[in-house]
Amino acid sequence: MAPKYVLHYFNFTSLGEPIRFLLAYGKADWEDIRYERWGDDWQKAKSKTPCGTMPILIVDGKQYAQSAAIARYLAKQYGLAGKDDMESLQIDIVVDVCADLFSKIGAWHYDPLPDSKASKEAPLLKEQVPFCLAKLEEIVKANGGYLVNGKLTLADIFFAAPLNWYIAVTKTNLLQAYPTLQALVKKVESQPEIASYIASRPTNPENK
Amino acid sequence: MAPKYVLHYFNFTSLGEPIRFLLAYGKADWEDIRYERWGDDWQKAKSKTPCGTMPILIVDGKQYAQSAAIARYLAKQYGLAGKDDMESLQIDIVVDVCADLFSKIGAWHYDPLPDSKASKEAPLLKEQVPFCLAKLEEIVKANGGYLVNGKLTLADIFFAAPLNWYIAVTKTNLLQAYPTLQALVKKVESQPEIASYIASRPTNPENK
Repeated sequence: MAPKYVLHYFNFTSLGEPIRFLLAYGKADWEDIRYERWGDDWQKAKSKTPCGTMPILIVDGKQYAQSAAIARYLAKQYGLAGKDDMESLQIDIVVDVCADLFSKIGAWHYDPLPDSKASKEAPLLKEQVPFCLAKLEEIVKANGGYLVNGKLTLADIFFAAPLNWYIAVTKTNLLQAYPTLQALVKKVESQPEIASYIASRPTNPENK
Repeated sequence: MAPKYVLHYFNFTSLGEPIRFLLAYGKADWEDIRYERWGDDWQKAKSKTPCGTMPILIVDGKQYAQSAAIARYLAKQYGLAGKDDMESLQIDIVVDVCADLFSKIGAWHYDPLPDSKASKEAPLLKEQVPFCLAKLEEIVKANGGYLVNGKLTLADIFFAAPLNWYIAVTKTNLLQAYPTLQALVKKVESQPEIASYIASRPTNPENK
């Protein structure tokens, strides 16, 4: 029998959203527990998590941490993780490239020192982000409209799901120069189960 | 026939070392190409890499990026990646926890702004690093001396291999308070093929 999943994450997309997309795609029996980023509930829950971080997925009563690890596990259950070791390697590379990119944006967004934050902005938004997105655009062009081997995989979901959060915090239409990546995001979001989840997901004041 | 592997990375341990340990452990036919961190060779090679980063593993003439993705692929070839999806999830969680920890130390070490670097030091070395290492120490105690299920896996190698770099850059004996983690590192380093690689690996001026 398929397990019941319970996801704990903040009330926005970011690192939790690939997991939500996968659970929706896989028609899982799942519960979507959401915390306010600066709220008391998360401060109370934090020390009970395995690493002081979310997302946390609860499976059969046990807690599992780490966004990419959880997403890879679910992708295996739903046929999106690679047909062999080499295809899985290609998928994992894209996942880690995206994770690195998103982590840099997060480090800039949450930098508490104004001078440090300001000094990161131009290298990030004018160099690192466009360099990486241009590479991903090339990859999708060379792979029949998907990130790996011309078919929907974990890589596409891991890239597309959290994007609106990064667009919101950078206040930048990150994909403006990348029509193939825009089309990829639309393909992911128009998977019927994912479209249906998106139509019903909660919004937050920052719409992200 | 097993492929010939060529690894491109800097002349120190850090993100490249789990891959080197795995190639040694698997008795692979491999070449260890090393670059100086601030040297011309890397500056010339950088734009030809898939993401502007190393390590890069070359397999059958194709370039593959991303330390954890490459390490996971090799671990599958050598029976160190998990016997089923759930064990692989547990291994992947530890790998990502270590990657997050190492990434925080790297972000501090390479921070170009002195005020920003100074402000990160105490939270990193007095809070984040000990919090994470204490969790890992508990995990190893609860799992028969290894990070996952009482046997050597990718998780142990990913944790142990790069540690001397992080010890060198923090100038801190990071494992001093964690005897179980110290013993784990010794177990990894005393695998015969890994011990033999360590005995013959190049050193660099900072001994890391």
